[in-house]
Amino acid sequence: MTDMTDPRQTALAQTLPATVPFVAPERMEELRGAPFDARLGANELSFGPSPKALEAMAQSLSGVWTYGEPENRDLRLAIAARHGITPESVTVGEGIDGLLGNLVRLYVGPGETVVTSAGSYPTFNYHVAGFGGALHTVPYKNDHEDPEALISKAREVGAKLVYLSNPNNPMGSVHSAQTVQDMIEAVPEGCLMILDEAYSEFAPESTRPAIDVTDRRVIRFRTFSKAYGMAGARIGYGIAHPVVATAFDKIRNHFGVNRIAQAGALAAFEDRDYLSETLGKVALGRAKIIQIAQDNGLTSLPSATNFVAVDCGQDGTFARAILTALAARGVFVRMPGIAPLDRCIRISVGRPEELEVLAARLPLALADARAAVA
Amino acid sequence: MTDMTDPRQTALAQTLPATVPFVAPERMEELRGAPFDARLGANELSFGPSPKALEAMAQSLSGVWTYGEPENRDLRLAIAARHGITPESVTVGEGIDGLLGNLVRLYVGPGETVVTSAGSYPTFNYHVAGFGGALHTVPYKNDHEDPEALISKAREVGAKLVYLSNPNNPMGSVHSAQTVQDMIEAVPEGCLMILDEAYSEFAPESTRPAIDVTDRRVIRFRTFSKAYGMAGARIGYGIAHPVVATAFDKIRNHFGVNRIAQAGALAAFEDRDYLSETLGKVALGRAKIIQIAQDNGLTSLPSATNFVAVDCGQDGTFARAILTALAARGVFVRMPGIAPLDRCIRISVGRPEELEVLAARLPLALADARAAVA
Repeated sequence: MTDMTDPRQTALAQTLPATVPFVAPERMEELRGAPFDARLGANELSFGPSPKALEAMAQSLSGVWTYGEPENRDLRLAIAARHGITPESVTVGEGIDGLLGNLVRLYVGPGETVVTSAGSYPTFNYHVAGFGGALHTVPYKNDHEDPEALISKAREVGAKLVYLSNPNNPMGSVHSAQTVQDMIEAVPEGCLMILDEAYSEFAPESTRPAIDVTDRRVIRFRTFSKAYGMAGARIGYGIAHPVVATAFDKIRNHFGVNRIAQAGALAAFEDRDYLSETLGKVALGRAKIIQIAQDNGLTSLPSATNFVAVDCGQDGTFARAILTALAARGVFVRMPGIAPLDRCIRISVGRPEELEVLAARLPLALADARAAVA
Repeated sequence: MTDMTDPRQTALAQTLPATVPFVAPERMEELRGAPFDARLGANELSFGPSPKALEAMAQSLSGVWTYGEPENRDLRLAIAARHGITPESVTVGEGIDGLLGNLVRLYVGPGETVVTSAGSYPTFNYHVAGFGGALHTVPYKNDHEDPEALISKAREVGAKLVYLSNPNNPMGSVHSAQTVQDMIEAVPEGCLMILDEAYSEFAPESTRPAIDVTDRRVIRFRTFSKAYGMAGARIGYGIAHPVVATAFDKIRNHFGVNRIAQAGALAAFEDRDYLSETLGKVALGRAKIIQIAQDNGLTSLPSATNFVAVDCGQDGTFARAILTALAARGVFVRMPGIAPLDRCIRISVGRPEELEVLAARLPLALADARAAVA
């Protein structure tokens, strides 16, 4: 057996496990020996992106031999124009995952503290650990992240960063703009608030505080992976005070954004009609999931996203058994990792035919699960 | 005037400048108010990728709503099979730039030392600075990187990493496989050698040491940006002992590689006929650049890459004046940053019509430059 440690690595790197935040559905398909019939686990947009985005990406292929434009100017200008801000307040990166990693790197030294909610986005926690930060968590409150507890903990531990997703993944819950704004106002001196708005396009306008890039206390992240249907393109952006947004230029991989993604994102961003259409379809899909859950005697949590957390009415063991049974029956779904959230499974809005598959197989999976945990 | 410092950032981040390793040709075009007629500055492959890669990317667009497969399995298996190694020795990332950043993060703590050649790849130096490493350089020797001096310096300063590109960018020079293997054998205890083979497909087989993934002393980087013509896709790979290659899984952005890039890279890698064709075209282009230089009384350095370093016969000021004049006349070219390398300009093999533009405008640019520095 080879010794898999490497004493040449940094002390921090030596302590880190080789890990993947999420097991990929492709790997699960390989293990079960067949493709899934319904891919409802990664909160992707099964309807795909705007035809205009697809056309822009197809057009851009002939130029794939050139590096992407490293300042992401066209996209930053479009985003800035929409929000009435300057492009110095917009930073573009390889999805929110990539932006979160760079933000942690900029703000969190070894041993410095970060606050988030127990059961919230695991990839953020992965980056905090990866830069040696000390993560403190507070519990959810009524299946919502708890702004007061987050701020209170941030104050208590002297946090460099405090994380809130609005709407929340994995529960689908959302706070009002006022509640979020109150949290921003309460961010302690020396701390930066991350407002992860990956799902915000799906939520009502009244949940989005006004963008104010004169405020150094908050950075907001948005993405083309969810409502714009381009998860595989890897492109997202941050909006913040220029002192925060331009800091990414100190460390980012400047030529790191794929040029096909740049072209697609710009076209997707400009096609507001398609976004409206998408939101309508997602609302129908949510209603369908809620109906399917109800038909099976399960309760759904209210959702402001493109997924629904379905309360399976027992503990994490039971929910996990349902997940396993669904996977065995060709339906890919994920679930929260931590109690009490893990009484739920999280079902993404898929295409209508995928939700039909869910409707047909959920009763069988529930029976499997009840037998398994009996 | 806004205060652009942020005391919440790490001490290291506060010291870093917001920078771009290279000014993009798009920005230069914006400044000059017109597009370039010949894009010969970024060592891209103007012929573009294999039609099979383009077809694979076009096909993959319909699936862009899904995240890419986070383990890059298909591509890693193909690379591993080609070299008779296991996929645990292959790591895929967002171009060599992205891989270099993660490697530095894994191996270099603040104040730890790294050795490279003065005038070699600036983006590597950027990453070393970005993680607080202390960079030590040795000079080139006869326009080649100097393996003996690199090893000697690495030993002297107790380097964690020592960098060699083979073939070398920006000079186009190359060492034999034996010379590189001798360098690997001499890597001091506690040090890891980076063998950057971004351009190695353009060079003779006799310049590539046998791949030996039982050797923990070296990691080799290759890319789809150069010989495969996919710079804008952002995908490259590392080959190393599993202990080194799998270490990237501790910190990388697991879903960070664009799925269109994954599809294109696999198809490009398998199309060996197209690669052969490309190498033939690049050889013709190199010969054409050498001829153009000679027609203008300039000497070319031997090149094992898809670019030619042309010795302008004077100092950096003169070479820079030629660069400026070429840009003003619609020809994008770059040059080494440090004396004595900066007596040269670096001209990428472009399409034949681009090299015709170069042939027509280089005499004029030379006259401009002679007038400017007179």
